[in-house]
Amino acid sequence: MKIAFIVFNDMTILDFAGVYDAITRLKELKIKTDLDWDICGYSDTVRDKHGLKIIPDKVRNNLGKYDVVIVPGGLGTRSLQNDSEFIDWIKTAENVQYKISVCTGSLILGAAGFLKGKKATTNFNEYESLQQYCGEVVKERIVEDQNIITSGAVSSSIDLGLYLCEKWAGKEAKEKIREMIDYHP
Amino acid sequence: MKIAFIVFNDMTILDFAGVYDAITRLKELKIKTDLDWDICGYSDTVRDKHGLKIIPDKVRNNLGKYDVVIVPGGLGTRSLQNDSEFIDWIKTAENVQYKISVCTGSLILGAAGFLKGKKATTNFNEYESLQQYCGEVVKERIVEDQNIITSGAVSSSIDLGLYLCEKWAGKEAKEKIREMIDYHP
Repeated sequence: MKIAFIVFNDMTILDFAGVYDAITRLKELKIKTDLDWDICGYSDTVRDKHGLKIIPDKVRNNLGKYDVVIVPGGLGTRSLQNDSEFIDWIKTAENVQYKISVCTGSLILGAAGFLKGKKATTNFNEYESLQQYCGEVVKERIVEDQNIITSGAVSSSIDLGLYLCEKWAGKEAKEKIREMIDYHP
Repeated sequence: MKIAFIVFNDMTILDFAGVYDAITRLKELKIKTDLDWDICGYSDTVRDKHGLKIIPDKVRNNLGKYDVVIVPGGLGTRSLQNDSEFIDWIKTAENVQYKISVCTGSLILGAAGFLKGKKATTNFNEYESLQQYCGEVVKERIVEDQNIITSGAVSSSIDLGLYLCEKWAGKEAKEKIREMIDYHP
């Protein structure tokens, strides 16, 4: 299972870090040895909204070869949802099995057309913005609809990570990782 | 108030991201307009333990000019606590007002001599390792002893961030940010 973690300017790093931390522990703990991932960026260097500089492993690469694409949120999504070049890049994930977002990352999945007729969620301030892209906005922390998995605002990234651990490796794996990161929601 | 966020190889990015996210919102929301920060690294490029590449703003710079130093944890701390060059760099923070750590970042503060006679905490698996460096190991999520503030395992980084928001900007600011990131511990 190969994951593309999408990164872009003015993203929120915590949106990325929660789900990234939980999932990558599946490999660290040898629970899921076939797991692998790339940090996939829209630019050679990515700056989060507060200036943290990240160097992606791949830049504007074809996302079609991954099994999972995960899109974080952040202020950058507000303009990127209308950036046709960026959205064309995201659209290369069309045949990817799991399309996943944190917070306003769902606006990106939506702009790429992946949420048509689907239930989805986003940051609690952006429910209206999401409506145009999906079948039904659901005001919950994590929403799954046929391999489209969207989560709510920032800290829900950790819950999403643990949700995916359970989905892909079982409840015991999820509990082990939850304890490792000392998370008690 | 100027903060140095320390980054190093084999750190845990979530240890960094939780506290970074909460604190930097104090500036984003114009609650604390004098707040500023640098990402300070021990190498030109830093790779977290799962391969994420970060470019620090400053490399091995004198930490004495900051008001706050925040050290994350991660597997890298186990060897870096015995790396005299790295610890000499951290020691340049000796006169910094607030010395703060997440998870095993406290082993670094300890190796630099900042925890002598102080109460402190760390990852729940490393209480014994911390004992050599401090006055008393306290098994709590956040421990403050005279401007030395240490927190527990990974996800406690978010709690630490909110704790600092309240300490530096009041309860209202902390609650506002807690709601923004939708965190309900």
